[in-house]
Amino acid sequence: MDLPSIPAKVDAAALTSVLDGRWAELRRQVRAQMTENQFRDSYDLDTESHRGQILEQLRELANTDRPRLGFDRGYGGGGDIGGSVTSFEMLGFGDLSLMVKAGVQWGLFGGAVQLLGTERHHERYLRPIMDLGLLGCFAMTETGHGSDVQHLGTTAEYDPATREFVVNTPDRAAYKTYIGNAARDGRMAVVFAQLVTGGSGRGVHAFVVPIRDENGDPAPGVHIEDCGPKAGLNGVDNGRLAFDQVRVPREALLNRYADVAEDGTYSSPIESDGRRFFTMLGTLIRGRVSVAGSAGCATERALALAIRYGDVRRQFERPGDGEEVVILDYRAHQRKLLPALATSYALHFAQEELVGALHDIQGSADTDEHSQRELESRAAGVKAIATWHATDTIQKAREACGGAGYLSENLLPSLKADTDVFTTFEGDNTVLLQLVAKGLLTSYREDFQDLSAMGTVKFAAEQLLGAVIERTAARQAIERLIDASPRRDDEDSLFDRGWQLKLFEDREEHVLDGVARRLRRAGAADADPFEVFNDAQDHVLQAGRVHVDRVVLEAFVAAIERCEDPDARTLLERVCDLYVLSNIEADRAWFLEHGRISSTRAKAVVTAVNGLCAMLRPHARTLVDAFAIPEQFLAAPMLTG
Amino acid sequence: MDLPSIPAKVDAAALTSVLDGRWAELRRQVRAQMTENQFRDSYDLDTESHRGQILEQLRELANTDRPRLGFDRGYGGGGDIGGSVTSFEMLGFGDLSLMVKAGVQWGLFGGAVQLLGTERHHERYLRPIMDLGLLGCFAMTETGHGSDVQHLGTTAEYDPATREFVVNTPDRAAYKTYIGNAARDGRMAVVFAQLVTGGSGRGVHAFVVPIRDENGDPAPGVHIEDCGPKAGLNGVDNGRLAFDQVRVPREALLNRYADVAEDGTYSSPIESDGRRFFTMLGTLIRGRVSVAGSAGCATERALALAIRYGDVRRQFERPGDGEEVVILDYRAHQRKLLPALATSYALHFAQEELVGALHDIQGSADTDEHSQRELESRAAGVKAIATWHATDTIQKAREACGGAGYLSENLLPSLKADTDVFTTFEGDNTVLLQLVAKGLLTSYREDFQDLSAMGTVKFAAEQLLGAVIERTAARQAIERLIDASPRRDDEDSLFDRGWQLKLFEDREEHVLDGVARRLRRAGAADADPFEVFNDAQDHVLQAGRVHVDRVVLEAFVAAIERCEDPDARTLLERVCDLYVLSNIEADRAWFLEHGRISSTRAKAVVTAVNGLCAMLRPHARTLVDAFAIPEQFLAAPMLTG
Repeated sequence: MDLPSIPAKVDAAALTSVLDGRWAELRRQVRAQMTENQFRDSYDLDTESHRGQILEQLRELANTDRPRLGFDRGYGGGGDIGGSVTSFEMLGFGDLSLMVKAGVQWGLFGGAVQLLGTERHHERYLRPIMDLGLLGCFAMTETGHGSDVQHLGTTAEYDPATREFVVNTPDRAAYKTYIGNAARDGRMAVVFAQLVTGGSGRGVHAFVVPIRDENGDPAPGVHIEDCGPKAGLNGVDNGRLAFDQVRVPREALLNRYADVAEDGTYSSPIESDGRRFFTMLGTLIRGRVSVAGSAGCATERALALAIRYGDVRRQFERPGDGEEVVILDYRAHQRKLLPALATSYALHFAQEELVGALHDIQGSADTDEHSQRELESRAAGVKAIATWHATDTIQKAREACGGAGYLSENLLPSLKADTDVFTTFEGDNTVLLQLVAKGLLTSYREDFQDLSAMGTVKFAAEQLLGAVIERTAARQAIERLIDASPRRDDEDSLFDRGWQLKLFEDREEHVLDGVARRLRRAGAADADPFEVFNDAQDHVLQAGRVHVDRVVLEAFVAAIERCEDPDARTLLERVCDLYVLSNIEADRAWFLEHGRISSTRAKAVVTAVNGLCAMLRPHARTLVDAFAIPEQFLAAPMLTG
Repeated sequence: MDLPSIPAKVDAAALTSVLDGRWAELRRQVRAQMTENQFRDSYDLDTESHRGQILEQLRELANTDRPRLGFDRGYGGGGDIGGSVTSFEMLGFGDLSLMVKAGVQWGLFGGAVQLLGTERHHERYLRPIMDLGLLGCFAMTETGHGSDVQHLGTTAEYDPATREFVVNTPDRAAYKTYIGNAARDGRMAVVFAQLVTGGSGRGVHAFVVPIRDENGDPAPGVHIEDCGPKAGLNGVDNGRLAFDQVRVPREALLNRYADVAEDGTYSSPIESDGRRFFTMLGTLIRGRVSVAGSAGCATERALALAIRYGDVRRQFERPGDGEEVVILDYRAHQRKLLPALATSYALHFAQEELVGALHDIQGSADTDEHSQRELESRAAGVKAIATWHATDTIQKAREACGGAGYLSENLLPSLKADTDVFTTFEGDNTVLLQLVAKGLLTSYREDFQDLSAMGTVKFAAEQLLGAVIERTAARQAIERLIDASPRRDDEDSLFDRGWQLKLFEDREEHVLDGVARRLRRAGAADADPFEVFNDAQDHVLQAGRVHVDRVVLEAFVAAIERCEDPDARTLLERVCDLYVLSNIEADRAWFLEHGRISSTRAKAVVTAVNGLCAMLRPHARTLVDAFAIPEQFLAAPMLTG
């Protein structure tokens, strides 16, 4: 490897400034506030005390201006969408129950009122939502319908006689379940239900429904259950809700996208029931983006713990001098942690790009639909990849700390237990990746949030054009790098960014073409669309994954471009190489099978990953310090004694 | 695929009888006892209540004859080593805290007294150990030395004046840590310490040391700490122990392998300190075998829960008929669970072979050293692969059940949290796989349990012969299958057992030769042995892994051979195919890089895995029912509501 050498000591602060990106100033403020508040993980509390502590921390948080950031200035909000998401995701450094509880209150509940409601709802609810005068729930998921929310069973039928909606849970499968804030603290819920008026169903709509009275007792007709202990996040009071003919006024309908007149006449600017519902869902992606971001913070924290430990823990004597070897000097240990660290850098930059795009698109008055759909797709894809990465990496970090990593005092157990559900909530990852592939196949022309897998088939069958790569970041730099990349495949080209980019783009195009070809078979007269889809499902998921990989790489390239410190930049170049080459290594069977790389080159990729691990090992501590995680979140006894 | 079709309905009981193997009768008794006792998982207890409940369950267990099975008949034991391990591992179906607590008391503490002690210890302690009159600990691990136990810091110096050993903890790094039974219940500990007599250190030996008095207060000079909450296994009271010049009589030395005379003279039939210590450790492998087995039971339980759920849970409508699709009909869902299920079958059979070998070798008066070393190697390898498989598979099972899988009431959270530590306790898996490779490289001639990684280098450098495959099960059948396998590589040969076996053997030989070649470089005059080892570490680990894969496949072949029910046999043949081909699929980059399979064939492997998943899907429920897990351990509300 003939690469520029990395200076012995790189300034962590220079890396932090690249990582902090567009909302750097806010991040600094949040860190300062966190250090002041001394929020600690609560691994030794029983469920009720933990819930109480999280509610208290939520109130402390309400006293800062952060929860207001995402709301309209007209109601005392900050009008800063990106800043809002950034401050939510940074809660991921601490007790994740607080992040989730805050996300439920201000992101999901408050976000639904703001984005699906109109002035009458904003006037009445936004201020108490911001200051916690009104605690609320987001009641979408049902026992019988988690991913397929278009087919929820709860109904809200309009009664013109009393000008009310009657909210009803027809059966056990239609119980709202896993609902945060429901078991203990919530007073109101945004309930998603099939709207029925004049005998006709008009699809799923959202309604504000009181669930508890002033005394905290269930409102009449509302049945509330506690979901009980969970694998993690026990500071959040998840519950089940059922409604027995509960009457709410006509104005309870969050009516930005549809309304029902006093006489029961239904009106909406969007004709298709499905399209309307998926448009509503599309506005609510902040939650998904925040989950991806806080999964990232939690992963960074786990890596910081494991790398600090690996940097001081010694085991087995080195032959000759009798000194015990620091475990991060072992290649197996480096391989466990350093490619994961490189991937965390990559995902951090992708998240930062995503938040910026969210801010620009949701903050703009006239957004074209294509950009909106691309944003939804990217949010889904980054969330899936980032949360799986979190689960894998936190597990590795736990194992890398041996028995110490299993003790709650060393913080990794809560990180692992709390983040586990991220892979299946706010959209099941498998379903989300299908959705990404669907967006690519239909060039984001279709109702994006229609998660129905089979929906993909219809469109793809009509998709005749070859896949087109649409770059999401650093477009000019990428063009330049690709143009300058070598035509020949020599060993050094492994480290050529242009070659790497081309390889990722080429993989994406090829996989996507393959999916389109397979799905087109559904058009045959004797084809069973389900069978066609099912036979292609692996390829569909792979298409989603490799697309996200490419988008993530582009974000990394953009981050390197904006890095002004030359030493930090040299280091980031190598971290990017490790991200790319460990990704290729993991998928090298595909590259070999499709004649993209030779056997010799595949082996060279493995060697290069080893070489990069060795090269980055002396900088591992700097790389985790650069995350600038407030020290109280790293106060594990295993690191001090 | 031109394969014999599987009958529509295969008898689960016929499969159970193959799975149950040599200790089938005992397994039936254990199941019956479990069903009677109605032990339940305790996911909603606080730590102290959980510890109390587990102690109570331990007492109930002591009232059965099972804990006695592994002890000598002379002291009221059952003299049935295999039966003992089988009954321990079956505790893995239930609350794993009970399995671990039982393992500490009867396996580690009782096992050390029995296997490292002599008549004076047996007479005094074995009966109270069996009936819980004496609760004890196994105090080996120290804060500073987990894997490298040869370099423990605790000392036991002989004082001829008083004929006592003085047990001492010199510093914080020498605290005994994670010690089960220490925080609350233990009265005595087998303490591993550096024996010093006449001013000379003689390596690590074991001593029985009282740690609490009659009232449960710490014995004089003994300092006890509670390890506090852990990720899981909170029914076990893990603690830390430190000794401040604690005096115990000369007879406290467990003196089967070495003794100290009254005047302080040291004697041992084994001259080398290291060899003696590793011989002692070698006798204690029952714990490791039990952990592998109970990891297997826990994994089977997780798969049973997830497959039952996937078999009833529906999501998204099928185009055309509007019926919602059962999620196990989706290929992505099958791929998540069915290859893991096939691997669980394979590991179950490997465990069953291992327990049989343990029984025969430890039960025999004259065992050759080669067999003993091979057994230790196999125990290490199967433990590593089985516990990683447990962690991966239980995670997949959790995700496959979505939000329901995250609720404690649905049992998966405890399974996940409790088994997590299995990958790093009873030997860190990474270290164990190195140990397997070392055994292969030295043909089991060297001190096996010397976990020092660098130890490998010295021997391998002298290893001149090519690797020799030593078959461990079904030798004749394997010979016959390999001889009959086709020479040509046509598509059907993917399903030819002989071809599969040859491929696994060939991979093992090739990887092992490569490791030997790399390590031999350490012999060069200017070589740094650590660097040579570190550069080869990945290959060393791979050698361990592929060796275990081959041993596991042989056990599967042996199990099929003994299956008398023709339908069950046909089904098992396909399950074995899925085990083999999903293993090849995961490692196909290696096969491609080394010219073992072509690109076309690699793609055919992927297609074959898909085909097998579809073929086995209708039998998934039967395959998990065949584990015959007592129903109370599968009573998850998600399956009934």
